[in-house]
Order: sequence, then C-alpha cells, then structure tokens
Amino acid sequence: MPEHDSPIIPRSDNEKIKLQNRLKRIEGQVRGLQKMVDENRYCMDILVQISAINSALKQVGFSLMERHTKTCVKHSLESGNGDDYVEELMDIIKQFSKS
Amino acid sequence: MPEHDSPIIPRSDNEKIKLQNRLKRIEGQVRGLQKMVDENRYCMDILVQISAINSALKQVGFSLMERHTKTCVKHSLESGNGDDYVEELMDIIKQFSKS
Amino acid sequence: MPEHDSPIIPRSDNEKIKLQNRLKRIEGQVRGLQKMVDENRYCMDILVQISAINSALKQVGFSLMERHTKTCVKHSLESGNGDDYVEELMDIIKQFSKS
Amino acid sequence: MPEHDSPIIPRSDNEKIKLQNRLKRIEGQVRGLQKMVDENRYCMDILVQISAINSALKQVGFSLMERHTKTCVKHSLESGNGDDYVEELMDIIKQFSKS
Repeated sequence: MPEHDSPIIPRSDNEKIKLQNRLKRIEGQVRGLQKMVDENRYCMDILVQISAINSALKQVGFSLMERHTKTCVKHSLESGNGDDYVEELMDIIKQFSKS
Repeated sequence: MPEHDSPIIPRSDNEKIKLQNRLKRIEGQVRGLQKMVDENRYCMDILVQISAINSALKQVGFSLMERHTKTCVKHSLESGNGDDYVEELMDIIKQFSKS
Repeated sequence: MPEHDSPIIPRSDNEKIKLQNRLKRIEGQVRGLQKMVDENRYCMDILVQISAINSALKQVGFSLMERHTKTCVKHSLESGNGDDYVEELMDIIKQFSKS
Repeated sequence: MPEHDSPIIPRSDNEKIKLQNRLKRIEGQVRGLQKMVDENRYCMDILVQISAINSALKQVGFSLMERHTKTCVKHSLESGNGDDYVEELMDIIKQFSKS
C-alpha cells in the first residue's frame, strides 16, 4: 500500500475551511445527542438523529474520496504506479459500505 | 406513528452514564478528525477514521434499538397496540441501513 | 438463540405466493446481469443493476423482518421468553446493515 | 456523464467466465431462497441467506468497480477527461453504500 503522511496535492485553505465547518457541525450534532439523552428523549428520536449524523459523516467521506481520486489517484496513475492507489481506494470503499 | 417525548420505561442513571460516555468518546473522535484536517493528513487516514466513527455511532444506535425493543415495543405488544411500534422500528431500521 | 425449523405462525399461501413472485423477479434480474456481461455492457450499467437487485433483496428481507417481529417476536414476548428473540433479531439487523 | 455501451478496454474471455460463474452461483442462491420459502423455513434462516447473497453481489460489484477504475477511469484520466469518469464512479459508490 502507498505510504503517505499527507495528500500528494495539498488541500487549499478554502478546502480546509469547508471541511472544518462540516466537521464542526457534526461535532455539534453529537453534542446534541448527549443533550437528548440527558433530557430522556424518546429512543426513536435519538435514532433518527444518529442516522442523520452518519449520513453527514459519509458525505464528508465521499467528498474526500472524490478529491483524492481526482488528485492523488490521478497523479499516481499518470506516474505509472496507480494500481496500488486504486486498491487502497477500493479497500476504503468496501470498509465504508459496511460502516 | 406512536407519539412519545420519552421512553415508556425511563432509562436508568446507569444506562444514561454509559450512553453519555460512548457519545463523549465519539465527540472526541470527531474533534480528532478536525485535527487531522488541520495537520493536512493523508486522505485515506482520515477516511479510515470516519469509517470508525460511523461504526461506533451505529453500535450506539443498535444498543438503543435493542433496549427499545426489549422495553417499549414489548410493553406496547402486551398492551395490544404493538404493530404501530413495530412499523416505527422497521422505518428506522431501513433508514439506518442506508446511512 | 431460539431453535426453529419454521415460523411460529406459519406463512399463509398468499404470503408465500407474494414472496415467491418477488424472488422470481430477483432471479430474473440476476439472469439479466449475466446477459449484460455476455453482451459486454458498460461497467457502470452493470453496477447500477447490481445496486437495484441489492435494494430489492433488502426489501424482501425487511418484509420478512417486519412479519417476524409482528408474529414470532410478539408471540415470544407474550410467552415471557422474548429477549432471546429480540437478540436474534438484533444480530440479523446488524448483519444486514453490513451486507 | 460519459456515454458508453461497453467498457473502453473490453473484458477478456477469462474475465467474462469468472463473472458468469459468480453470477450463476448467485442465481442458484436466489433459487435456494425460493425453496426455503416453499419449505416454510424459519424467517431468520432466510434472512441470513439474503444477507449472504447481498454480500456476494456487492463483491461482484466491487470487482467490477476495481477493474473499471484500473482500466476505464485510468484511460480517461490519461486522456484528460477523467473528472467525468470520477464523478460517475462516485455516484455509483454512493448508490452502493445505500443499497
């Protein structure tokens, strides 16, 4: 598998800000869950909220995947060592589909 | 659909503490994601972490579902109006399987 | 776990016919996939079809789960040994959410 | 979205045979489900089998995705029009994760 500390093409400040905003919103939603438990809210209402957070997290994941494929995988395919990157991508897609 | 503000059988203090601990850990994991973005970490490493948070959230959801079925759904089936609760449960199971 | 060869409340002829019709349609869709491979169809078209079959299979699964909960689980909760059935149900829900 | 009737790089006979064998096995599993319904088998046993078929179908899907990315997407990225293919791939990944 490819060894990397950071993306081949670094994220721009704009990309980072957008990601952080989405993650802060998700952090707020998880704190909202804690409030619902404190307030002894109905199980189904909490479950609907958990499902919404999962969808939001997956959307962030899909954005990262798309960006990764359009930059890192593309770059590596052009450099001739792309297959390792495609296999790494498939592994995470499989893991995602189970989580 | 059944209308409820809180579970038919209230959560015990012990149940609440356990839930809150799991949710606080998940909140910490989401903050960890923000740190990874700050540090410009490799896309795949972030995706593995998102997948782990999703699994943790689903586990919390499954615990709530099991508790709900063993208490609220059971109670309502005994009172003769259980079918509404089963349909409500099926709706969230379907939603969960897509999120 | 509960040991059973058949549902506590047997499926009616009508229920069986409906299930069989849905399963025959799915069998036809799988044969359709083989035809698409034979005809060397575009990968994405085949993938869209696989995704549709998965959804159809899950819908059959959800129908069975709902029926099971409204009959077998209900019956067992009334007989006082329902928790085993709820745990068995949760196991399959977890497995489903990963498949 | 890219318009294609067939893969940019045609599937080899060997690839086709392997795919067909996997799909025939899945077709057999779906017929097995019909037999289970005929024999009035226990709901949970049928659900375990449905879940197994879903996993098998997804594995076929992931193989097709990997092959598609290593050939068609690679080829299109090299030709400079890869982004459309990546977006098409992301769409099917999102659809798969819900099915």
